[in-house]
Amino acid sequence: MNLKERKWCGWGLIQGPDLLKDKRDAFWNWLRELSGFEKLPHTPSVEMLSIQLNTPSIPSSLQKELQEKLCQGRVTTAFEERIIHARGKSYLDTLALRNGEPLNAPDIVVYPKNKEEVITVLRWASLNDIAIIPFGGGTSVVGGVNPIKDVHHLGIATIDLREMNRLIKIDVKSRIACAESGIEGPRLEELLQKEGFTLGHYPQSFEFSTLGGWVSARGAGHQSIRYGKAENWFAGAELVSPPGSWKTESFPASASGPQIKDLIPGSEGILGIMTDIEFRIHSLPQEKFYTAYIFPSFETGIEASREIMETDIPLAMIRLSDSYETFFYTAMQMGGGDPTTLPQFCLMLIGLEGDTPCVTAGRQVMEGVFAKHQAISLGEGIAEQWFNQRFLLPYLRDEMLDYGLGVDTLETATRWSKLLDLYEAIHKTIHQAIENNTEQKPQYPIVMAHLSHAYLDGASLYFTFVFPRSLKDPAGQWQRIKKSASDTIRFHNATISHHHGIGTDHKPWFAGEKGALAYELLRQIKNQIDPKNILNPGKLI
Amino acid sequence: MNLKERKWCGWGLIQGPDLLKDKRDAFWNWLRELSGFEKLPHTPSVEMLSIQLNTPSIPSSLQKELQEKLCQGRVTTAFEERIIHARGKSYLDTLALRNGEPLNAPDIVVYPKNKEEVITVLRWASLNDIAIIPFGGGTSVVGGVNPIKDVHHLGIATIDLREMNRLIKIDVKSRIACAESGIEGPRLEELLQKEGFTLGHYPQSFEFSTLGGWVSARGAGHQSIRYGKAENWFAGAELVSPPGSWKTESFPASASGPQIKDLIPGSEGILGIMTDIEFRIHSLPQEKFYTAYIFPSFETGIEASREIMETDIPLAMIRLSDSYETFFYTAMQMGGGDPTTLPQFCLMLIGLEGDTPCVTAGRQVMEGVFAKHQAISLGEGIAEQWFNQRFLLPYLRDEMLDYGLGVDTLETATRWSKLLDLYEAIHKTIHQAIENNTEQKPQYPIVMAHLSHAYLDGASLYFTFVFPRSLKDPAGQWQRIKKSASDTIRFHNATISHHHGIGTDHKPWFAGEKGALAYELLRQIKNQIDPKNILNPGKLI
Repeated sequence: MNLKERKWCGWGLIQGPDLLKDKRDAFWNWLRELSGFEKLPHTPSVEMLSIQLNTPSIPSSLQKELQEKLCQGRVTTAFEERIIHARGKSYLDTLALRNGEPLNAPDIVVYPKNKEEVITVLRWASLNDIAIIPFGGGTSVVGGVNPIKDVHHLGIATIDLREMNRLIKIDVKSRIACAESGIEGPRLEELLQKEGFTLGHYPQSFEFSTLGGWVSARGAGHQSIRYGKAENWFAGAELVSPPGSWKTESFPASASGPQIKDLIPGSEGILGIMTDIEFRIHSLPQEKFYTAYIFPSFETGIEASREIMETDIPLAMIRLSDSYETFFYTAMQMGGGDPTTLPQFCLMLIGLEGDTPCVTAGRQVMEGVFAKHQAISLGEGIAEQWFNQRFLLPYLRDEMLDYGLGVDTLETATRWSKLLDLYEAIHKTIHQAIENNTEQKPQYPIVMAHLSHAYLDGASLYFTFVFPRSLKDPAGQWQRIKKSASDTIRFHNATISHHHGIGTDHKPWFAGEKGALAYELLRQIKNQIDPKNILNPGKLI
Repeated sequence: MNLKERKWCGWGLIQGPDLLKDKRDAFWNWLRELSGFEKLPHTPSVEMLSIQLNTPSIPSSLQKELQEKLCQGRVTTAFEERIIHARGKSYLDTLALRNGEPLNAPDIVVYPKNKEEVITVLRWASLNDIAIIPFGGGTSVVGGVNPIKDVHHLGIATIDLREMNRLIKIDVKSRIACAESGIEGPRLEELLQKEGFTLGHYPQSFEFSTLGGWVSARGAGHQSIRYGKAENWFAGAELVSPPGSWKTESFPASASGPQIKDLIPGSEGILGIMTDIEFRIHSLPQEKFYTAYIFPSFETGIEASREIMETDIPLAMIRLSDSYETFFYTAMQMGGGDPTTLPQFCLMLIGLEGDTPCVTAGRQVMEGVFAKHQAISLGEGIAEQWFNQRFLLPYLRDEMLDYGLGVDTLETATRWSKLLDLYEAIHKTIHQAIENNTEQKPQYPIVMAHLSHAYLDGASLYFTFVFPRSLKDPAGQWQRIKKSASDTIRFHNATISHHHGIGTDHKPWFAGEKGALAYELLRQIKNQIDPKNILNPGKLI
């Protein structure tokens, strides 16, 4: 991990990949037309050094005190460190950084090396009323790592856990591994795969996000049908919090009262800092089979996905794009397309992983189900292409931002019986909200979605929307679009997030979704563990 | 449901099945020899009418007040009703009833007909400081429904939920059904199967236990590998508690903070009374294939189970008996056996359910794995026999109790890497504890076990032990054996219960297993929901 190689105000590496290659000019020209621009604006980011940060409010005597308790080099107040820990990767975060807004950054950043150092930091913070923000990859797209100023606290310290990145143990027989929470995706998989195992958790942020972050926000990898969402593969943790250390039980199953440890996944740092995490691993599959189909409509694709989820085939992934997304990605590959042609057809990428005889039998069952739904096989090439490029798409966001566009994603989940209605309602809402909130009227607002994760009882929907950015009030523009979409999700009783988390962006809808009693329970639980509210204050509750 | 047909002090129906048939005399003679008796004692139960109950402490004016608020016939103080609601089906419960001990029964029994009536009862109870015990099938084998006297309460009312037994809705597309919590297993499956679906939850108590009971104690059916433990198929609930009604969210998946509703499974009535429960259902499988194998040792059988759990075959059940249990059941079928012959070989029953091509491929994978472990196929006959008799075994307990014997079961779960050590330690402990605590020395204490439920990371062990009952102090004898076994489970960091629950029997080991912080959280949660502690007081915390 070399933070110097990473962008301070955008996604990923400074030397990022070239996704568009020779289709670059054609693609941007196509997008320009769709967005209704005669010429795409040039709206680059400010320089990092031009940004104004808040004056640190933790007295230097207290900083020194902490420095002396830890090994050398663990505590920093460097300008660049404060900036890269001031925000995550949400649309608002990126806007704020690129536009050079004055930032509320943490006063100090601490890089603990082990559990004992985390305990030391927490004691110091607790004693001195200093707020603590646990920080993994900083890839939250919902404001999960942003400092929230609170008059009760003397200051804010961000705890970057990426120096705690050891794979501690593999229990080979039990298919359980234990690692420190700050380990990043690629390193974790490399160490596991060297021993023949995989966690199989490949979220879009895989290259930069951490084990602890995945659990904190209940993340989901692309292959979550096989490997589970974070709360499914999470087996236990050690959590450091003001009342002390909490090492959870870690049974394959139990009937010993309620499973209290289920409070940890999704707690977004407000209940403690995870130091070690136990998680379920798998042998590498004998066979992987990824292929692509075209469906005549989103509705038939959904129905086929629903049916396939009830079979016994070793599914790893279903990814069904709506006609708009299919159209957009086709245009991306082709370097544009005819904007006057109505979108048609829906692309499904589907993956099976497992024992060869089961994958073989699974293909037979799958083909039977899909034939009923008029699906046409496109073969393995397109799926392979997606697989190779699957972590590259977020890079496109920064380019769009450079060209006066805005782009964001949002996701939700609901039952199969409500999925199509929800999809249509959100699509219509975002479309309308973009039209109502753009100074530069788009010729055609780009609102697209895919079914991203499937379950026996329902699925998640992942929306992407691209729009001409308001140059007068870009944050307000986004907030109005986001509010329309989120209100629609709440109205349809779907969840405000399937795998991004709550952070600050989704907080206005959180209490309503949980219901008064459950929300009050969470408040009590938080108060019991953290009466001074020093752990990631302002998040969730 | 006709309670008159059921035993008041034993398992199941008065007109129970004849499990032993023409092997009856031979079997009891064999068991007599093993237990070291010259003649098996004759120790029948007392008559129900001879039992002394506590004088009800709820004033009749308050009873009348409740009666007037509900429809006629909902409230009863009949002697027989109080007795059958005084205890569940644990060893201690059965002993107390059979021996005619004075009983602490609920003052009144209420049979609410709907959610509104549950709310009425709870309001009345809350206002008057009356403790409430939710009662489903009353099949708890750990003291889960027993009234615990508490000076702070005016009295105790048991809420029998079996009149709330409607299947409310099936969301066919989403494979989610909703039913009232008091519905019993056979009725629920009949109604679901009529529509082509199954919940697939077949615990040993299936014929008499209820949907609400399964969730309350985190039960597991025989086919839990396919259909999940209660907490896995549980999708949501409406819970009535003193602060009001709590209708949980019910998403296929979410990242909206911690999943607070996970506190409900396993809460054993201390957080509220579930009125409606949503649960995941499945289409009836195309094919079921149940068969039997013999393994040369428990260790090789465990290793084969572990390996098969990591394949992708559509498993529904693995049930691996140790050599003692294999020996015992063989003797039961044969009408005895040679007690001087050392037990050998271990029987595995294994079941696949699902789409025909997947079951076919699964059989191929399974045979490959088992061949490596020197397993010998016994074919489908033995599995079929087990399947047909699977709910009959508990009846044998009452016969054993009539013959001066004691018999109990206990269960736990741990990881694969620790399973064999745990098995050996518990086996040895119970064996020793029986030898140390019997007046009539057994020739050979019967301690047997099977691996009952398997997971990717571990499995559960289910022990049965038969011993010459102490006629002087039968409860003390059991408590000493139970304590030895439970201490061993705690020492090995396994769970005190995999699917029976905590109730009163496991309470001494509960807090230690949860850890101080998690236990304190549960106490706070309970206090927040039920500050007067009227909901099943004395259970869990």
